[in-house]
Amino acid sequence: VRRVVLLTDFGTADGYAAAMAGVIAQGTPAAVAEHAAHDVAPGDILGAALALSRYAHYYPAGTVHLVVVDPGVGSDRRPLAASLDGRYFVGPDNGVFSLVLERAGEWEAVAIERVGLGEEAAPTFHGRDIFAPAAAYLAAGGRLSGLGPTVSDPVRLSLPRPRLDAGSATGEVLHVDRFGTLLTNIPGHWIAERAASPLRVRAGEIEVGPVRHTFSDVGSGELVALLGSLGWLEIAVRDGRAADALAMGRGAPVEVRIRSS
Amino acid sequence: VRRVVLLTDFGTADGYAAAMAGVIAQGTPAAVAEHAAHDVAPGDILGAALALSRYAHYYPAGTVHLVVVDPGVGSDRRPLAASLDGRYFVGPDNGVFSLVLERAGEWEAVAIERVGLGEEAAPTFHGRDIFAPAAAYLAAGGRLSGLGPTVSDPVRLSLPRPRLDAGSATGEVLHVDRFGTLLTNIPGHWIAERAASPLRVRAGEIEVGPVRHTFSDVGSGELVALLGSLGWLEIAVRDGRAADALAMGRGAPVEVRIRSS
Amino acid sequence: VRRVVLLTDFGTADGYAAAMAGVIAQGTPAAVAEHAAHDVAPGDILGAALALSRYAHYYPAGTVHLVVVDPGVGSDRRPLAASLDGRYFVGPDNGVFSLVLERAGEWEAVAIERVGLGEEAAPTFHGRDIFAPAAAYLAAGGRLSGLGPTVSDPVRLSLPRPRLDAGSATGEVLHVDRFGTLLTNIPGHWIAERAASPLRVRAGEIEVGPVRHTFSDVGSGELVALLGSLGWLEIAVRDGRAADALAMGRGAPVEVRIRSS
Repeated sequence: VRRVVLLTDFGTADGYAAAMAGVIAQGTPAAVAEHAAHDVAPGDILGAALALSRYAHYYPAGTVHLVVVDPGVGSDRRPLAASLDGRYFVGPDNGVFSLVLERAGEWEAVAIERVGLGEEAAPTFHGRDIFAPAAAYLAAGGRLSGLGPTVSDPVRLSLPRPRLDAGSATGEVLHVDRFGTLLTNIPGHWIAERAASPLRVRAGEIEVGPVRHTFSDVGSGELVALLGSLGWLEIAVRDGRAADALAMGRGAPVEVRIRSS
Repeated sequence: VRRVVLLTDFGTADGYAAAMAGVIAQGTPAAVAEHAAHDVAPGDILGAALALSRYAHYYPAGTVHLVVVDPGVGSDRRPLAASLDGRYFVGPDNGVFSLVLERAGEWEAVAIERVGLGEEAAPTFHGRDIFAPAAAYLAAGGRLSGLGPTVSDPVRLSLPRPRLDAGSATGEVLHVDRFGTLLTNIPGHWIAERAASPLRVRAGEIEVGPVRHTFSDVGSGELVALLGSLGWLEIAVRDGRAADALAMGRGAPVEVRIRSS
Repeated sequence: VRRVVLLTDFGTADGYAAAMAGVIAQGTPAAVAEHAAHDVAPGDILGAALALSRYAHYYPAGTVHLVVVDPGVGSDRRPLAASLDGRYFVGPDNGVFSLVLERAGEWEAVAIERVGLGEEAAPTFHGRDIFAPAAAYLAAGGRLSGLGPTVSDPVRLSLPRPRLDAGSATGEVLHVDRFGTLLTNIPGHWIAERAASPLRVRAGEIEVGPVRHTFSDVGSGELVALLGSLGWLEIAVRDGRAADALAMGRGAPVEVRIRSS
């Protein structure tokens, strides 16, 4: 089974995502299309990069990850195909692969110039006319180098970096998930290494409390700080939405400090 | 083809559902992931139980139904795997399997204790770290008993029961579907057995009228009571939304009576 | 691989779409269900017809396209199965196949009368009880003529026609997509043939400007008229929503004229 896993901001109702899946089915009938998500916020490159980083590495080697969140479609941004630790990635060179690249061991990338459709690509739908054919080609066992010339400098998002010092970690909210949970850029290992100390979390001006194990360590409706499943500090409300309770979103400041008792 | 059918409240945009599908693909490459739904309302165990009961039995024997609506994740609620009439079910022991259990002939269940990932489960994402590996194991032909010890008392939701007497049936709305149709707990067989009598339906204080055959038995925009495709009384508005027209939702009282003419 | 591609307005949370996929899996275990979309606006036959026309022809011959947007379910509208240029289409005869029929070379159609489930169809869920079994039958290699008698006059939507003359094209908005882009019924070839002339686009009373190549030909937040990837004139806002900026939707008038300079 050769899997092509799709991630876009196209929604599904308009048939754009299905057109990509159809192109893949026609190009490589044995490929299996899996739909990771099509409801990334329109144009949200960081949101797509985060989502991709949560699932890409769980798929087996040979999987083709097709990512089209592409506000610059038709401009001179490069169409990219890459191989990272045995998995393939296809999509616009706009930073959407930043986080999987950061984590990768071995990688190589090319700018897609030859896709073999024999038709001109529509300037507003490279997902269908360039990226899906390239994904189908890779799912059929095609070589990366057959798609175009090597790229050594794929675009990287400049993500906000947390500030770590002896007494505290200061970072910010990177993403709000479906549950209204705030995902921060404060690394879990900083917290895990200090788990014996009395850590206190603050979001903006609001005290959240210590870092807990799971949601049910607090009462229903209460704020809770957690070392999230993705390896970063998260702030949630049990059975509720922290983003609403705190009126905070992407970019909001978060601090963890070793309490001076 | 071994199918794993996923039902969660994770949404898709955050990549959580795709992480589960990736774990399944890695564990059992021949398995085919089908996505039933990821947009169950967050934490809505009854909603998930109802959805599952509408489709689980249509899938062929051997299908693995993976259900993760799990507000108690990381607490001491048990992770469950079960076999019901030849189909497998994996998910939290919080009542989400109540309705398929009620309908089942032969069943057995175990508490998942061994999943073979060789890593510690994140306390906030058992979907990825416990339930998906268990589903992959069953999709690969693994035996239920290999996952953990027998459970004889899976959690059952205590659903509101309709009251039936000679002259009427009294129940309530269990669910509002995408069309705004109200699905009640009044059983269709009670109505079918009295189809020769002049039945009248009332929702709250509002007269809906007789039990009809289908939507087009009334005019556009009008209320209609139906014996629904799921085997229960439903109240709809043709080309509209009964939930909005009646300002009613889960728990609203519904009555069917044999009209005293 | 025999693909059945589903398009409905059922949403997913209620389990209706999964019930259809389950019926297909049970009827033809080797079939692969792909979900094009389940979030067509409830009862929006034109929206479904447009979505289908964007992806159906990209799938390989033998694909079964199952479309259930069916506000007339249970009435006397015919259940339809058709073969168009080697692909199958199954769904209600309510116009949802209008656009793929318009484009088709060879086609034949039948009214579904025999589906072999051995149960009576629920009058409100033909998707599960008639259309999904028919799709499973075709995915298993069944012959179209085995489903019922020939239909020579499938229902066609009467779409608004653009008016073309020497100096201008006048049409209207057919659809608003996920990005808030307005898709019109003004054909791209009319524009392409006059690309050397100074074309000007107007939506309602608002001047949009010339027909451009892609979004990035204008600044962020600005209106742009494009020859869309579907072959029709579109009006968008770069990094924004034209439907909101113009407060326009389906039916709004659009004009392209050769500027008298």
